[in-house]
Formats: sequence, structure tokens, C-alpha cells
Amino acid sequence: MTTFRISRPICVLGLGLIGGSLLRALVDANVPAFGFNRSPSGARAAAKDGFDVSSDLEETLTRAEREGALIVLATPMTAIAGLLDAISAHAPSCGFTDVVSVKGSVLTEVKERDMQERYVGGHPMAGTANSGWEASDATLFRGAPWVLTFDYAIEQRAPKTWIQLWTDVALMAQTVGAEVIPARVKVHDRAVARISHLPHILAEALAIVGDNGGALSLSLAAGSFRDGTRVAGSAPSLVRAMCETNSEALLNALDEAMVLLADARAHLAEANPNLEELIDAGYRSRIRYEARSGQSSADSVSPLSISSRPVFRLHPGAPGWVNQLKQAENIGARVEVLNIG
Amino acid sequence: MTTFRISRPICVLGLGLIGGSLLRALVDANVPAFGFNRSPSGARAAAKDGFDVSSDLEETLTRAEREGALIVLATPMTAIAGLLDAISAHAPSCGFTDVVSVKGSVLTEVKERDMQERYVGGHPMAGTANSGWEASDATLFRGAPWVLTFDYAIEQRAPKTWIQLWTDVALMAQTVGAEVIPARVKVHDRAVARISHLPHILAEALAIVGDNGGALSLSLAAGSFRDGTRVAGSAPSLVRAMCETNSEALLNALDEAMVLLADARAHLAEANPNLEELIDAGYRSRIRYEARSGQSSADSVSPLSISSRPVFRLHPGAPGWVNQLKQAENIGARVEVLNIG
Repeated sequence: MTTFRISRPICVLGLGLIGGSLLRALVDANVPAFGFNRSPSGARAAAKDGFDVSSDLEETLTRAEREGALIVLATPMTAIAGLLDAISAHAPSCGFTDVVSVKGSVLTEVKERDMQERYVGGHPMAGTANSGWEASDATLFRGAPWVLTFDYAIEQRAPKTWIQLWTDVALMAQTVGAEVIPARVKVHDRAVARISHLPHILAEALAIVGDNGGALSLSLAAGSFRDGTRVAGSAPSLVRAMCETNSEALLNALDEAMVLLADARAHLAEANPNLEELIDAGYRSRIRYEARSGQSSADSVSPLSISSRPVFRLHPGAPGWVNQLKQAENIGARVEVLNIG
Repeated sequence: MTTFRISRPICVLGLGLIGGSLLRALVDANVPAFGFNRSPSGARAAAKDGFDVSSDLEETLTRAEREGALIVLATPMTAIAGLLDAISAHAPSCGFTDVVSVKGSVLTEVKERDMQERYVGGHPMAGTANSGWEASDATLFRGAPWVLTFDYAIEQRAPKTWIQLWTDVALMAQTVGAEVIPARVKVHDRAVARISHLPHILAEALAIVGDNGGALSLSLAAGSFRDGTRVAGSAPSLVRAMCETNSEALLNALDEAMVLLADARAHLAEANPNLEELIDAGYRSRIRYEARSGQSSADSVSPLSISSRPVFRLHPGAPGWVNQLKQAENIGARVEVLNIG
């Protein structure tokens, strides 16, 4: 195992489930880290647990600038624009990343402020059933995918400072146990539309149709309905934020699903209903998912969680590293970052 | 607890997951029971485990007739017509029930042979991930809904023999730990279209759309996709049989879902995408399901599994009992049958 070390302290803005878990995990790993939470009560709760936190944004960012920290925007999309303005004002030389589940909308805000040179987009794909500091957990990210974007390195020759920033964000994700998966912004947003946002839309529709059947339907509902509607129990504001900010990619995924359903409907309405096409294809797809997915280890009885994702070992900035990122994106591989020089 | 006793032995035709589990559970409960399996190897496996089974259908039915047994058709829909003919020929006075997941198609076969007077439709809603005698389990039905139809008692004044048959089928389901939920054939088929068949169709479509996204999509797919596609891993032939034989009710449920999705699509394509309507309604429906469903006890940490379904205590044949069945159907209640006479 190569020893790696993040080259700067981490400043976490927002101490909810994701930000709080990140701060806990970093401190557990002896990485210097401090945090900010807008609500004083949340900040007090974290301080009471022994963490170095504040509810004064200007003070926190001034400190980040002084210490050359890596800033993590661990807030929902709605808070991003305001935080970017504050970073411009009070931490003008700090690199930063974020954890928003749709990357296109964040990049738009970053570009509007011409801050791309010190930004790496991030998306840790970890549970959101509960929220707030109270729900935070240092082990939340273990084995979870943590997508990092790399569009900037393709659009222009990335300066050494950006490569070091990308490296530090990757090392941070690795340090807390996540698996770093590189993907460009649009590619990421199209993928999550298929495997995260569309499942939410279908779950909502299924929940309503079941409920429309009244008490008997709900009484008879068993495993297939319970699993198929589980994510309809997520907080509506979170689901809306994800789906509405990724509308273009979600429309494409939804249209694909609606074409499949319309075909199935037509076959079902025939004199001799025949759903072979849909059901055989769906079965093959599910089996492929089970074989390829990084999730299989979750059901394993082994205490050792072995990722089923292929791995690329990467020296950021070395010749061909951007091509390696593209290849990893193409096969959904994780990368293990080896410290640069 | 009232003591109840089934008034006759049980003859189980088909010793797969459902039939095998039923035979095991009945024998465990000291109910006289014997079985038939078409494949001699399956029958040998059951015999080896100490059960009273045969692979000779005529012999088995002749014995059922001689002993006045209750016959359970524990086979897929495709075998039902042949078994009904065999029962007509060799067990002309036995009452019978079945376990097929769509009740309309079975009733059609029964009516074609004018056998309604000795038929009660049944649908035990227990898992089907594995199949065959090897997968059978005496505890399979504990806490599971077991729907019993009662159309015959509405269409005409049911004779006492039919009431005794209904009672014995209900007692059998109770004996193996299931919860008896009365529903008429069409009402049942409409309900399961919503909460069992539609979930399968949506899962198949979701699995395909995710897979269409390629390796990155499958690598990033986490809980929402895993749960939303789980039943797409069911054997395609079983899914097709359920959905295709319930095409009329499934079309209605699918159309409801497609209207919701088309509305969502329209809102998503607006300049300011807004999915509030779908997502808020879906959330409320899921919460209502969680509150009403009989499944909540499965997640309980208590060793005592308490059903969340309301219960009606029923004296079959007593004045007003058919109205009680209708009321139970209306609210998805279970009935506890008290022995008649």
C-alpha cells in the first residue's frame, strides 16, 4: 500500500449528513479539518462532540484562506451560489469541491464566476434517508462511489495547481473509504438520471397507483411493491432538487422508459398478450447489473468487503493520465491515486 | 384461542415451492396430508424426506375421493385445465382450491367445467425467488396474506357443503400461519395488478434503461436502482405468466402509471421544471402504505410478529357472513375463522 497524504487541511461548509460524516471521517483519519454550519444549533452540536466548527462563514473562509485549506461545499444546490460568492470574497486562492448530486448546475455557477481553475466537482453516492449532524457517521462513505469530474483537464491544459487539487480531492475521498470514479459532468448527469433519478420517478408513480387501489391493495402489497416504492419515502424536497436540476438528462431516461412501457402496453392489449420482449430484456439487464455492480459485496457474508469494480492506478499529471480517466469513466472503474512527486 | 380443526385430509397436487411448503407445514401441524408430483424425481425427493407422496395422478385422486380429501392445485396456471379434467374424472365429489396468482383465468376454467360448487379460489402471497421441493419451507406462509375468493356465495345462495369447503380452506391457511384475506376474483386481480404485476413491469423497464447507460451507469447504481429493479431478477416465465393472464387489470394499472409519467414529463420539459405534484403525491402514498401495510412487522425487532391488518372474526354461514366478507375485502382486513357447528 502506498502511503499518501493530503497536502492541506480540509474546510467543510455545511455539517449535515454528508458534511458531518466527512468531518468525522477525516478527523478519525487524523487529517486536519474544520467546519462551518449556518445554523448555530447545528454548529453547537458538532462543537459539543469535540469538533472544530463555527457558524461564522466569513471567519471560517478567512481561516481557510490563511491555512490554504481545501474547501468542501457540503450543502444542497440552493446554497451553492451564495457560498461561491463568499469564497470569491474571503478565500480567493482556495481550491474547492462540492457534493451536489447533479454536476451540470454547479458547473454553470462556477463558470459564471470564472472559478473553474480551482474547482473539482464531486458526488459521493451515499445514503440520504436521514439528515443533519445527528445522522452523521464516520463510516458513511466506506465502499461508496465518489464521482470526481475532470472536464477542466480536457477543455484546457490543466495547470499543476489544478492537478494537485484534483489529487487532494481524490485522496480525501479515498481517506474516508470511498471509491473514486472519474466522470465528466454531462456523462455523470446522464448516468445518474438513469440509475438514481428515474428510479425515484417510477417509485413515486408506482406508490400512487398502488394507493389508488385502496385498502385492499395496500394490505396485499408485499415485497415487489415495498421495494419498488421504497425511495418514494425520501424527503420530497430532496427528490425534487435532484430531478428538477437534471431535467434534460432525466427527460431522456424517462422517454426511454415510456417507449418501453408503451410497447409493453401494445403487446398486452393484443388478443394473446405477450410480454416476452420486455421481460426477457429486463431480466438480462438485471443479471448484468448484478454481475457488474460494485454493490455485490453488500450481500457477501465475508467480513472483507472486496469491490467488484475494476481499478486503475493513477499518477495525476503523468503523461496520459487524462486518457486513463476517460477509460475509467468508460468502464465505470475506480481509480486509486498514488501521490504525486 | 378457539380450537379449530380441518374436517378432512388435504391432498396437495404439485410439490414445488408452494405445494411443498404447504405439505410440510400441514404435516408439522399434524393435519393428515398427502401429495402428488408429476416428476418422479420430485416425488422421490419428498418421499425421501418422509412424506406420503406419489407421482401417479389417477391413484392420488382416487385416494382423495375415497378419503373425502380437500384437493389443493399447487401448480402454475398452465397445468390447471388438465388437473381439473382429472379431478372431474377421478375425484368427482372432492372440493378443491388453487394457489394461482391470477384468479380470473382459473375461474374461467372452473366455470367451463361447471365445477364452481366445489371450488374456492386461493392465492397465498409468499415468496417465489426459488422453486422446487428443495426450496420448500414449512414456515413460508407465516404472516403472509392468503387471499380466498367468495364470488360463489354472492352469485347464488351457497349450499352448506360450499360453506364447509370455504371454512376448511380458510382453516388450512390459518393452520400454516397465513392471514386469510377475502376478496372477489375481479377485485383481487385488480389489486394484484397494481401492487404486484405493475411493479414487475416498471422494474423490467428500469433495468433496461439503466443497462442502456453502459458500464458507468451500472457501476454508479446504488440503493434506488438495486431496489427498483430487484424483481426484474425473477424467472421471466413466472413474470410473464402472471402479467399476461391478468392483462385487462394490468392494462388499467399501467395506463394510470403512464398518465402520471406523461404529466411528469410535461412538467419536466417546462422552462422551470416542477415535479411537486408527482413527488408530493408519491410520498404521501408511500407513507400511507407504510402505515397500513401488513408488512411492517417484518422490520420489527420484536420476536412477536403482530399483524397490522384489522381482523374480523367470522362464523362461516352465520347470518350476514357474506357481508362481513365484503367489508373485510373493502378494508383489506384478515378474517379469523371460528369453526362452524
